[in-house]
Amino acid sequence: MTVTLYHCRDARSFRVLWMLEELEAEYRLELLPFPPRDRAPEYLARNPLGTIPLFLEGDARMTESAAICHYLATTRGDGCFAIAPGAPGYAAYLDALSFGEATLTFPQTLVLRYAMFEPEDRRQPQVADDYRQWYLARLRGLDAMLTSTDYVAGDRFTAADISVGYALMLAEFLRIGDGGAPRIAAYWERLRSRPAFVRAKAAQA
Amino acid sequence: MTVTLYHCRDARSFRVLWMLEELEAEYRLELLPFPPRDRAPEYLARNPLGTIPLFLEGDARMTESAAICHYLATTRGDGCFAIAPGAPGYAAYLDALSFGEATLTFPQTLVLRYAMFEPEDRRQPQVADDYRQWYLARLRGLDAMLTSTDYVAGDRFTAADISVGYALMLAEFLRIGDGGAPRIAAYWERLRSRPAFVRAKAAQA
Repeated sequence: MTVTLYHCRDARSFRVLWMLEELEAEYRLELLPFPPRDRAPEYLARNPLGTIPLFLEGDARMTESAAICHYLATTRGDGCFAIAPGAPGYAAYLDALSFGEATLTFPQTLVLRYAMFEPEDRRQPQVADDYRQWYLARLRGLDAMLTSTDYVAGDRFTAADISVGYALMLAEFLRIGDGGAPRIAAYWERLRSRPAFVRAKAAQA
Repeated sequence: MTVTLYHCRDARSFRVLWMLEELEAEYRLELLPFPPRDRAPEYLARNPLGTIPLFLEGDARMTESAAICHYLATTRGDGCFAIAPGAPGYAAYLDALSFGEATLTFPQTLVLRYAMFEPEDRRQPQVADDYRQWYLARLRGLDAMLTSTDYVAGDRFTAADISVGYALMLAEFLRIGDGGAPRIAAYWERLRSRPAFVRAKAAQA
């Protein structure tokens, strides 16, 4: 079945693009200007929420980036990018998959919005700063995950690393980061040098 | 294996409490004052992030509420509260599980923080209003999910309904809501009248 991915460059949907490249899957990439709500209004007919990603495969229609990665990891590639129920690391895998989006990317979106995207008169330096601090505090949770392993779950690369890795990519763009956390810097270097990550970057260029 | 759940009344960890009650599981409930970071500092020794939930079962240690519900749904109760890979509704199930937290609860936390929890001089009415609107706009996505079915995935009650249902519970507390969305009001009534929901409310009383 053909996969179609609606994507904006370097936005959350990058997680899905990266997952597809890890799987060496075939897909149709629909690149949209950001934010599509304003700059590609015809997209609202496909996704009334106006959010990206939008992922289509047969009857499957999904809009949550971490969930799509898990969906792909459990339905393709013999499950080699997921951890199965009961296997060692299953709890850590599910937790990190959610943590990357709900705990790490969430505060970053506040920094993006109130320090960069809003018009000058609607910017909120206090809020951007509150969530910069929030992100850095939560990043300590990632540092703890990496104390004895190279990946966040099961001692191997999984979709959970894609969920968390995207937050590190966004942190680099926002220049809020890992100074003083060498384990996180080494982990990010490990992720960004994966051939599939490099291919995903090229695919959206 | 014994389950231990660290929980604050009506906080995100309520999702896990509700899931445990649906499963009729045994668990030890550790009720903490909110926010535990300030009001139960000894908790930081257990969870340095200071966040709730914290869920422990044997070697499993998790902090993401929607992920814990999925973990429990796939490891207990013969999977009757999850949808398995390949089964109809699998994509919708994973998407709604994530949507409840990352898309619906995320904006609510901004309203909570900047309209209620921050001291007066740090409140941000503009931000609270921005995310009240954001939540209501995303709620349309839920309305669309419910057009032809009583639950968000697979036409039966699953952990994804717990993820979304918690957001509706929080919306009621915040008084941002479903006026004008009768399908959502009926869905919320269906969820809150479940015996397990009522037992979870009683367990934290």
